[in-house]
Amino acid sequence: MEEKRGLKNRGYSHADVDERRTAVEKFTGTSLENISKYCFDSEKASKNIENMIGATQIPLGFAGPVIINGDNAKGEFIIPLATTEGALTASVSRGMSVINDGGGARVRVFQDGMTRAPVFRTNGLDHCAEIMDWIGKNTELLSSVVSTTTNHGKLTSAEPFPAGRNLYIRFTYETGDAMGMNMATIATEAVCKEIENHTGAIMVSVSGNMCSDKKPSAINMIRGRGKTVIAEAVIPKDVVEKRLHASTESIVETNIRKNLIGSSMSVTLGANAHAANMVAAIYIATGQDPAQVVSGSMTTTMCENVDGDLYIAIRMPSVEVGTVGGGTRLPSQAEALAMIGCLGDEKAKKLAEIVAVTVLAGELSTLSAQAAGHLGKAHQELGR
Amino acid sequence: MEEKRGLKNRGYSHADVDERRTAVEKFTGTSLENISKYCFDSEKASKNIENMIGATQIPLGFAGPVIINGDNAKGEFIIPLATTEGALTASVSRGMSVINDGGGARVRVFQDGMTRAPVFRTNGLDHCAEIMDWIGKNTELLSSVVSTTTNHGKLTSAEPFPAGRNLYIRFTYETGDAMGMNMATIATEAVCKEIENHTGAIMVSVSGNMCSDKKPSAINMIRGRGKTVIAEAVIPKDVVEKRLHASTESIVETNIRKNLIGSSMSVTLGANAHAANMVAAIYIATGQDPAQVVSGSMTTTMCENVDGDLYIAIRMPSVEVGTVGGGTRLPSQAEALAMIGCLGDEKAKKLAEIVAVTVLAGELSTLSAQAAGHLGKAHQELGR
Amino acid sequence: MEEKRGLKNRGYSHADVDERRTAVEKFTGTSLENISKYCFDSEKASKNIENMIGATQIPLGFAGPVIINGDNAKGEFIIPLATTEGALTASVSRGMSVINDGGGARVRVFQDGMTRAPVFRTNGLDHCAEIMDWIGKNTELLSSVVSTTTNHGKLTSAEPFPAGRNLYIRFTYETGDAMGMNMATIATEAVCKEIENHTGAIMVSVSGNMCSDKKPSAINMIRGRGKTVIAEAVIPKDVVEKRLHASTESIVETNIRKNLIGSSMSVTLGANAHAANMVAAIYIATGQDPAQVVSGSMTTTMCENVDGDLYIAIRMPSVEVGTVGGGTRLPSQAEALAMIGCLGDEKAKKLAEIVAVTVLAGELSTLSAQAAGHLGKAHQELGR
Amino acid sequence: MEEKRGLKNRGYSHADVDERRTAVEKFTGTSLENISKYCFDSEKASKNIENMIGATQIPLGFAGPVIINGDNAKGEFIIPLATTEGALTASVSRGMSVINDGGGARVRVFQDGMTRAPVFRTNGLDHCAEIMDWIGKNTELLSSVVSTTTNHGKLTSAEPFPAGRNLYIRFTYETGDAMGMNMATIATEAVCKEIENHTGAIMVSVSGNMCSDKKPSAINMIRGRGKTVIAEAVIPKDVVEKRLHASTESIVETNIRKNLIGSSMSVTLGANAHAANMVAAIYIATGQDPAQVVSGSMTTTMCENVDGDLYIAIRMPSVEVGTVGGGTRLPSQAEALAMIGCLGDEKAKKLAEIVAVTVLAGELSTLSAQAAGHLGKAHQELGR
Repeated sequence: MEEKRGLKNRGYSHADVDERRTAVEKFTGTSLENISKYCFDSEKASKNIENMIGATQIPLGFAGPVIINGDNAKGEFIIPLATTEGALTASVSRGMSVINDGGGARVRVFQDGMTRAPVFRTNGLDHCAEIMDWIGKNTELLSSVVSTTTNHGKLTSAEPFPAGRNLYIRFTYETGDAMGMNMATIATEAVCKEIENHTGAIMVSVSGNMCSDKKPSAINMIRGRGKTVIAEAVIPKDVVEKRLHASTESIVETNIRKNLIGSSMSVTLGANAHAANMVAAIYIATGQDPAQVVSGSMTTTMCENVDGDLYIAIRMPSVEVGTVGGGTRLPSQAEALAMIGCLGDEKAKKLAEIVAVTVLAGELSTLSAQAAGHLGKAHQELGR
Repeated sequence: MEEKRGLKNRGYSHADVDERRTAVEKFTGTSLENISKYCFDSEKASKNIENMIGATQIPLGFAGPVIINGDNAKGEFIIPLATTEGALTASVSRGMSVINDGGGARVRVFQDGMTRAPVFRTNGLDHCAEIMDWIGKNTELLSSVVSTTTNHGKLTSAEPFPAGRNLYIRFTYETGDAMGMNMATIATEAVCKEIENHTGAIMVSVSGNMCSDKKPSAINMIRGRGKTVIAEAVIPKDVVEKRLHASTESIVETNIRKNLIGSSMSVTLGANAHAANMVAAIYIATGQDPAQVVSGSMTTTMCENVDGDLYIAIRMPSVEVGTVGGGTRLPSQAEALAMIGCLGDEKAKKLAEIVAVTVLAGELSTLSAQAAGHLGKAHQELGR
Repeated sequence: MEEKRGLKNRGYSHADVDERRTAVEKFTGTSLENISKYCFDSEKASKNIENMIGATQIPLGFAGPVIINGDNAKGEFIIPLATTEGALTASVSRGMSVINDGGGARVRVFQDGMTRAPVFRTNGLDHCAEIMDWIGKNTELLSSVVSTTTNHGKLTSAEPFPAGRNLYIRFTYETGDAMGMNMATIATEAVCKEIENHTGAIMVSVSGNMCSDKKPSAINMIRGRGKTVIAEAVIPKDVVEKRLHASTESIVETNIRKNLIGSSMSVTLGANAHAANMVAAIYIATGQDPAQVVSGSMTTTMCENVDGDLYIAIRMPSVEVGTVGGGTRLPSQAEALAMIGCLGDEKAKKLAEIVAVTVLAGELSTLSAQAAGHLGKAHQELGR
Repeated sequence: MEEKRGLKNRGYSHADVDERRTAVEKFTGTSLENISKYCFDSEKASKNIENMIGATQIPLGFAGPVIINGDNAKGEFIIPLATTEGALTASVSRGMSVINDGGGARVRVFQDGMTRAPVFRTNGLDHCAEIMDWIGKNTELLSSVVSTTTNHGKLTSAEPFPAGRNLYIRFTYETGDAMGMNMATIATEAVCKEIENHTGAIMVSVSGNMCSDKKPSAINMIRGRGKTVIAEAVIPKDVVEKRLHASTESIVETNIRKNLIGSSMSVTLGANAHAANMVAAIYIATGQDPAQVVSGSMTTTMCENVDGDLYIAIRMPSVEVGTVGGGTRLPSQAEALAMIGCLGDEKAKKLAEIVAVTVLAGELSTLSAQAAGHLGKAHQELGR
């Protein structure tokens, strides 16, 4: 009875959280003492979760400092990483220290735009063509419709993919410093109503999976989603040998046999060692959406022997991050953003650059560890 | 000076954590007060992280109760979800409530095995053939080598992929209730030494990316990794209409146009609405590796109209979860596992079944919301 | 001696062909009497082959007539199909006859452009950005360079893909009625020289595999290459039942379980039954490049139940065909093009439409045959 | 009238062919004189085509001789290539001549099996499990059923892929020297009837697209279909420089930037320069199914600098060829097979080895041409 009432409580106060948690404890016959130990104002989380009963605490460590020479991120940074995988922060730190010995990492955002691609039901290919034609002629109207739903979002393109009685339109938006997924969804729904009214198309779903959000999609590899970022570093020959206990040749060879050929034979999107580890750890620490690790981690890692030195670069086509909204509101996440000077406005590209350099460091460290043949050993000592 | 010392502190005590955090605060000029509020014994996290400075707190809510009829998970469950995405727990709860009205979800693990695939450098295709031949004739020897590295792991197969001077061997292991990645890595390194000694092959990397770990790979879609799980439910026609405000036809149509055709045209691994959201939330809550959301979320969602009722099923080929080791050791994560009766031994398959049902509920809810055209609205009310 | 001389003969006359063939007969100890029976002027093939010794004769049949309502192809057509697969022409003819009973097929070219994507070696990401900037500011110069290499080709876009020390530029060209691959290659080489001279970039390969030519690539699924064509037809309920011995429901179901879900689970580019059969047969008959069947056949087949009738449509994103140049010069191929009114100028889009309708008919026939469960039987009776 | 009768003529005699062609000439208002000049017995083509009106003549040239050291193909071979692409035979010949200077090519078939994967409709996941269980317990019964449909075919495995109410079973067969697709289809239909009778499963389609036939599928890259072949050669440093006017380094670099990184970024199945060209030319010449160029050409090309010499290898996972049945019956095709000693029994693996070496030579030649920067020039001189 009381238990049921607790489970059905929809409030956001600390008392509401306690009542729900107590009901869950009764229902499941388990003590949730540690879950109860959250240190933020539950009302503040009202836009982040429902049915809150407490918090999950993820150990937060740091990697670095690392010297970053980005268009937006400039200087020496200490990177917050929330993880439960032993050896990860140590490994990334090792990579960063080596990058510093080479003078730091260069990084740049090459493209920026959030997408949403509804699917419409049409009467067939001629109807698709009419709708495409109407959209092409009414971009200003659609842009004005978008502006009624958001102050920060701006429609930048509408790419059509007709397919029989299906028409997919991939809308791209500038979303300022928000990751922008919901802004794009709300704007797209308004745009779709307009399209429905003028063309007779029927919106079947505001997302037709050509967006594509939180799925491993070639369309994001090729067209990009969120920020498309490239980071690079040069590690002098002697640093490679002294610090990484490997040779430039062996690291280049490992990258070719493992990341390039191995990923091609297993038919993998991207070609990297473990980009997802770094992306997940920094996304969780900074309040990004951890489900977007799926597309955010589609990374191509490239190593070259340049006059004996090691050149390493990564391409990340789909870094979907924001510095306002979402999980960035929460206190520990906001502090992690503050640690890297990414809290608030005009910071999203800077964050994307920092994410990329963190991935670069992790790739460098793991590739050289594997080249030197002691990955398992590292885990035995530091991890599970 | 002092700051530098703090950053270089490698200890695990609360004092060590404080010294590091203080050094980071000085270095970055930011207060990390909320990050300092962790409620577990930092020594306990010694195998989960290095350079710990505190914790990230993720709001933890619940979805359910949901009635599960699994081979391992049986009964009514309340599912812990750690997330910062507004509307997610409410949406999953809605799906579960509807599933309950249909009598609950059926779920089953069809396959179970953790893989690691080293890449060897060989002298060419004849050498590859010799090595493959040697491995085929020495499986017992290799199994015994594995047993020297682990009590729980068991080598079950070795699938070779020769490619010129590259030879990839995809080793599969039973790993008990551990997710098993590190167990597989350590065992594989021992196996590789044996192969190197007997065949002259040179292990270039213990992971040749045909494993494939934390990358979106077709090989995991096709061969499976971790647990391959299928969950299904039938929602009676009237429940679909009354509870989901949609028709069976409209949900089936949405699934075809969005998940099946849209995913094919965007060249996506899997075909689903937002499996990654549910996988990430339950993985984080229960101490799984959030980087494995990448492969864990490669889900195929199928909807059918069966005599007017809605049949919905999902296939998840690569659910890499464990109930011992890793993040499951941490207090709030252990409590979340306890909530669903998945703490400790003989529980990994049960956890995989619960993960799948949670994804099933989320897919059902979102597909029907999109079919009913109010996805954006849900986010406007409940989310950012 | 003499034999060697024959093998080294580089001439194009009938006598040269005879000398070479005689030398090959001696070398291999085989009679090539049937290969000797070619009926065209070997000099005419001088741009199509070297070391000619005769001809391969492929049986040529026809499918149809079929009623086509295209933007370019209008009327009743008999389609030439060169094949050695028993049952294929009969099956396609059956599909066309059924399409006619529905009033014919609608078809339209939605996009047209041939691509070539060189890869440049650069000094790193800043150099990539400089080159991209230079190209953006010098499109007119590059267009004029293109015009020095071709009268028919026109540069329409240049899409950059930077990746560390690699820069891929996907150039798109209008190529008139030629398939345009060589035109694009030659133009791109000239453009690349210009880029090299002004930017210091080094062209490593005129094709960096983001073109992508004769490979199964997601980039062609998503961006299109050659002609992007959609064809559709509606088959009335009673026609489906009387002529196809199947129901609309069973064909729709077969398409979902086989083409949509099966193709997703096997991670296939496109979703179709056997598009490659039709594409290969018409490409060979009309002198197209049979290697381009690889990308030309990446087809998405969609079936719907529309008020009981069967709606079927196909999307072909990458139909790379021409009506001048290449194999179209050869007599039997030219006659096949003449059969469908596609010989010479202003005909390439018409040919693409006819290709698509031929694929539509083959998909319809095979899907309904499988729905009716007699695919094997058809092969047993008509072929092997 | 008469015309209609001609179009409806279903006979196979020369007179029937003439009547049909005459009817087509009338219908289309075109002369088909060259198409009429076929030199084989039309009755002989009765299992290869319907509605025959003549033949398409493809210029046939040769490449080689090439020294092959295969498990099945041993000695010096001249390779028949049917093509209309200028420069192709010359380019492949160049590659072969260079391979000879290195002592010839080594090649080996690593796996052999033809597949067919029906999709069944089931009642859900428990029914899937029951059917899988029944199949596992009745492999002998199913093998005996197969033997009632074929003398040469042998069932070797049955791999299940359950997915909700769908169950895909990937059956693999030994098919002797036939390519085996129809043999596998007919055998599978018989097997499916047995499964239907014993389990209540309903076969929706004998092909559920997990076979996968004539589609670019990851499942064939990973599991192989037909013959999985690897070929390799070593080209001494001085030969690379003198004969290919390139350096080992430049060819290795071209392969990395173009085939490995470029193919990964464009999300391509396989990683090669133009394997489809060689596969198409030799398939057409030898009476193979040109639609199977799609899967046959999924090639991974690997180049390495080994002590200054160039090591080049290719992996072809899915070479679906036969030396009996299909187009091999036709006279010019049979002669082309005879040219390489591949006519008749015990020759299919030999043919697969020859196909692979031909691809190896073409890859070597084109990569070095691109490395030396004169691809376009070659086409300008030799073709268009």
